[in-house]
Formats: sequence, structure tokens, C-alpha cells
Amino acid sequence: MSELKNDLLLRALKGETLSRPPVWMMRQAGRYLPDYIKLRQKYDFFTRVQTPELACEITLQPVDQVGVDAAIIFSDILVIPQAMGMEVLMEEGKGPLLPNVVKTAADIDALQTDAVEERLAYVMNALALTKKELNGRVPLIGFAGAPWTLLCYMIEGKGSKTFDKAKQFCFTQPELAYRLLQKITDVTIVYLKAQAKAGANMVQVFDSWSGMLSPADFKIYAQPYLVQIADAVSPDVPVTLFPKGSWYALGDLSKTSAAGLGLDWSVTPQLARTMTNNSITLQGNFDPSKLLAPIPQIKKEVNEMIDAFGTTRYIANLGHGILPNVPVDHARAFVDAVKEYGS
Amino acid sequence: MSELKNDLLLRALKGETLSRPPVWMMRQAGRYLPDYIKLRQKYDFFTRVQTPELACEITLQPVDQVGVDAAIIFSDILVIPQAMGMEVLMEEGKGPLLPNVVKTAADIDALQTDAVEERLAYVMNALALTKKELNGRVPLIGFAGAPWTLLCYMIEGKGSKTFDKAKQFCFTQPELAYRLLQKITDVTIVYLKAQAKAGANMVQVFDSWSGMLSPADFKIYAQPYLVQIADAVSPDVPVTLFPKGSWYALGDLSKTSAAGLGLDWSVTPQLARTMTNNSITLQGNFDPSKLLAPIPQIKKEVNEMIDAFGTTRYIANLGHGILPNVPVDHARAFVDAVKEYGS
Repeated sequence: MSELKNDLLLRALKGETLSRPPVWMMRQAGRYLPDYIKLRQKYDFFTRVQTPELACEITLQPVDQVGVDAAIIFSDILVIPQAMGMEVLMEEGKGPLLPNVVKTAADIDALQTDAVEERLAYVMNALALTKKELNGRVPLIGFAGAPWTLLCYMIEGKGSKTFDKAKQFCFTQPELAYRLLQKITDVTIVYLKAQAKAGANMVQVFDSWSGMLSPADFKIYAQPYLVQIADAVSPDVPVTLFPKGSWYALGDLSKTSAAGLGLDWSVTPQLARTMTNNSITLQGNFDPSKLLAPIPQIKKEVNEMIDAFGTTRYIANLGHGILPNVPVDHARAFVDAVKEYGS
Repeated sequence: MSELKNDLLLRALKGETLSRPPVWMMRQAGRYLPDYIKLRQKYDFFTRVQTPELACEITLQPVDQVGVDAAIIFSDILVIPQAMGMEVLMEEGKGPLLPNVVKTAADIDALQTDAVEERLAYVMNALALTKKELNGRVPLIGFAGAPWTLLCYMIEGKGSKTFDKAKQFCFTQPELAYRLLQKITDVTIVYLKAQAKAGANMVQVFDSWSGMLSPADFKIYAQPYLVQIADAVSPDVPVTLFPKGSWYALGDLSKTSAAGLGLDWSVTPQLARTMTNNSITLQGNFDPSKLLAPIPQIKKEVNEMIDAFGTTRYIANLGHGILPNVPVDHARAFVDAVKEYGS
């Protein structure tokens, strides 16, 4: 870490008071960048993900072109179901498709949990290569999908407005659900530790669909597995949990060994600070659609957001992934506004 | 009202303490009922909506077959954009499509706001006919979409995961957005008052997409128009507001002239009571997917929900519309569990 020229992200996670917060954007390596779209036209999704040189190139694009304070490795949360033996198809613009979903105990037993590091060696290679290419410019972030969110895809087979098939599976066969969630958790822990060894300076766990769960069901199907991951991985690398839509869990999650919590834009900074008792680094939570507003308005609202969160224990980010239709200069205005804060 | 044999809904709205709460289900007249599906195979969507005899028949189905304590008129929130002159297509299983979206000031100026009662006479006729057919068995609920949610469809033209086009319109042309929201509000007030005159005992305003807005933007683009509607319509009939996903606004909305607030399942009863200072009737908030659980579990969780909300100022309901794949006996188990509460 000492070799990092810009370690704002890590200092924010440690709770240091900074003159301005670090900034990165979820999905910053992606569809709003013309250079990414060029690569997308040449290589299919899994070629981009599984070729370390391509993943590295894509990961560096927003560092070079938008000026973010951290790189996040270009990959996908569905590499875990894939490494566990499930077929995952990714059609451009259509979202993921898992043709053979988990239905039975035998399906769960058949999921592979061994040799995770070998199966996902391409991610670790991409991290190591990117770390080298970054040469200490900014920290490198690794990530994984949360067990609940991966269960959603493994049962449902695709995106859904309600994930009611996944929920039906849990509500009618909870013992099978726990077994599946535990298997995903075990694999994820090995995976995130390997990411740390390969050079990740922080890892983020994306629980993109946790907000589908009631507070009571979140405590059953999401929280215990997030806690296990945070406990197991935190000794190796700081862990940030992003339970999208689960504002109700912020208090509980602030008491785990996680170093950071991601917030969507439904929570005010004031409420998030109160719920977490000022005890954990918060990350977020600019409405991604607000990047479609005029630049002066973006800058004004970024300033208000930082005023409200403060510059201690805070990482500026969006409240969800950047939208494909955001002009690059609007993304840059967001990043610049954070960097210019207080000056 | 005095002629109602079952006036539990109205007594709950007035704040009376009951031995058990009234129960109905959002989308109770719909796709999970075999008799509805039969009508759907014979008549297209707008024929069902615009033919009072059909709308009445569909409205009565859950009263007769599931035993709910209130009927809600079979209709759609998009009848308002339609009455304002926009083309609305409804393809079965595909969601709504508005081919000619609002883009400019001229588009807004061209929207019709006169003769609302005449244009939507079929809704008022359906209400009057249903009221007659109900013969006082249970109260009749009318409804409309909230201005923000209707703006979403009028700008975006269809459903969306993010409604970013609608938000971009608001963030880049706020004055046009306010003009459009006000026009929708004016029409909605006339429409809901006409529903009251035609026999609705309560009207509900569905802000299905308000949760897409940050708390600050909710106060700009949603709340003022909900407040106007509640203020204007409440003298005629009790108004329930359902701002899905906007748990953060419960405190503010509890101080309006609305008689009730709908809740989705992300809010615990305890928190909702605290945020609203026990001052308003709350309605909800069973996870619709939980109706896919085994019946004993449904009944257990319904009991826990009523224990938590209490039997004063509470209307049992789902936290969103009933899912098409819910077995009818599970829907009935939900309703029965409420009716058996405390016995």
C-alpha cells in the first residue's frame, strides 16, 4: 500500500479526515465510454472478461479518461455461478441467461466448490496485470456478487422484476436455500481472498437484489452470508457491502467487520449517518440519472452531497451503476466536482 | 355509507379500534383468477376496462371468490393519459406502450384537460353499476395513478428499470415537468371527485415509481402533487396515498389530508408507525411473493403482521400487486388469516 501515489480510498476506509473524499463510480468501466464500446464490437462479453489484457485495458479506461480515484476490475458477478459449473450466457443488451437453473437438492450438490482460484485464475491474472499497469496511481478494487443476489440468478435463470421464483424456492424449501447460500458463500470467500492476494486493495460485495427482501427475510437470506464474508475476508483486505434497496439493514451491517457500506440514493446522508452511528465508511449515493442533468446542476448537487456526508469516512460514488446514456463529460463533471470540493 | 353491511375499511380509515383489520389485495381483480383469465381470452384489455358490465364482473370476482372486505374497480392508471389525448396500447404480457411520448412544451399544451368526466364516463358507469351490484356487501375503492408515475409513462412511453428518460426530462426542463405534473394533477382531481360521486368509498393514488426519486427529488416532483390531490379530494372521499419505495416520505405524507398511506414490504410496521407518529391509517404490507409460501407459513406471518400493526388504523393488504402465479387458495388463505385474526 505504501507505494500508492493516491491512497485516498484506503484512508477513507480507515476513517481519516480528508480535505476531499475519494471518488469512483460503479460500472465506471463500461458502456458509456466510447473506447469500451469499440472493444465490445470486437470481442464478446466473456472474451473481454476472461482475457486479462482486455479486462485490464477496460479497467484502466476510466482511470485515464475520467480521472477516478480507484480502478475496479472489469468482470461480472456471474463468474461465480459459472465457476461452480453453471452455464451463463450473456447477450449484449439482453442481460444474463442461465439456461439450466438450480431446482433440486441434486442440482445444489452438483455445484462445484473446489479449485475456485484455478477456475477463476483469469480474474486474478487480470488483477495482477492491472495492478502492475496502474503502477500505484490509484487503488484497485475487486468484487463479487452477494450470495442472495447470485441465488436469484441461479434459481430464476435471468433478471426479473420480482425474483418471485427465487423467493418461492426460499420460502418453500428454506433448507435447500440455506445449503445453496452457504455453498456460494464458501466459494466467494475463497475468491475474494484470492483477489486480495492478487492485488485488490478493497473488495466490494454487490447485493443488487437484497432490496427485494423484507427486513425479516433479509436477516434470514442475505445478512448471515454477508457477515460471514466480511468476517472471513476483512483480515486480508477491507470489505465494502452494497445491499441495494436494503436501507433498513444499515444499522446491523455497520456493526459487522465490513469497512464500508454502499448506499443507494433513497437514503439521505443524514439518515445513513444516524443509522450507522457514524461508525463506518459510507459510499454513494448520487442518483445515476442525475448525471443526465446539466453540468452546473451536477456540480451543485455533488457539493451538497459531500457537505451532507462530510469528508471523514466517506467515499463519493453513484447510488448504482452509471447509465449507458451518460455523456462522458457529465461523468467527468461528477468526478471533477468531488476533486474540486472545498477548493 | 350507512347502508354498508361491511364497513370495516371505512372504520379503519376513521381510526376506530376493530377486533380485526379489513383486508383487500392490490390487483385482486386480475391475473391469478381463472375466471378473469377466461374474460381476458374473450375481450382485449381496453374492452374489459371500458365496458362497465365487464369491469363490474371482474371487480366482483375477488369479492365473491376470495372474500375480501373491499372491491376495487377494475381499471388502469393509464386511462388518464388516454383521456388527455395520448394513444395507449396494452399488449397482453408486455406492459403498456405509448407510441407518441411527450417531448416538448407544445406536446404538453396539446394535452386535453376538459371534459374529463365525459371522457372517462365508462369508469363512473362501472363504479355505479358495481356499487349497485355490491348492494352494500363491502365498500368500493376507486383509484388513479399519481402525477409523477403518469409523467414517467407519458415521457418514457413504456415501463423502464430506471425511468431515466423521464428523470432526464425533469432534470433538464423542470419548468416543463412542473407544467405537465400540474396538468395531470388537475385532471386527476376532477377524475377522483367524479369517482366519489359515482360511489367510490375510498380512492387510492398509486405512485408506483416514486421510489425511483431521491428524497429531495420526491419533494419536488411527487409530493406537492400528491398533497394537492389529497387536499382537493378528501372533502369528498377518504384518500389513500401509496408511494411505492418512498418509505422516506412517510412522515411528511402522514401530515397531509390523506386518510391512509400504503406501504411496501421494505418497511417494518414498527418503523412505519414511528415515522407516521401513529397519526394515520396504514395499509399493507405483505410481500406478494410470500403468497407463494406454504399456507401455514402465510397464516403465521399474517398474524405476526397484524400483531405488529395492531387493529387500530390498519388495513391489511399486500405490499404491491398480487402476482399472476399465486394459487387462488393461497390468496384466500391470506384473506382468511386476516378474518380469523384474534379468534
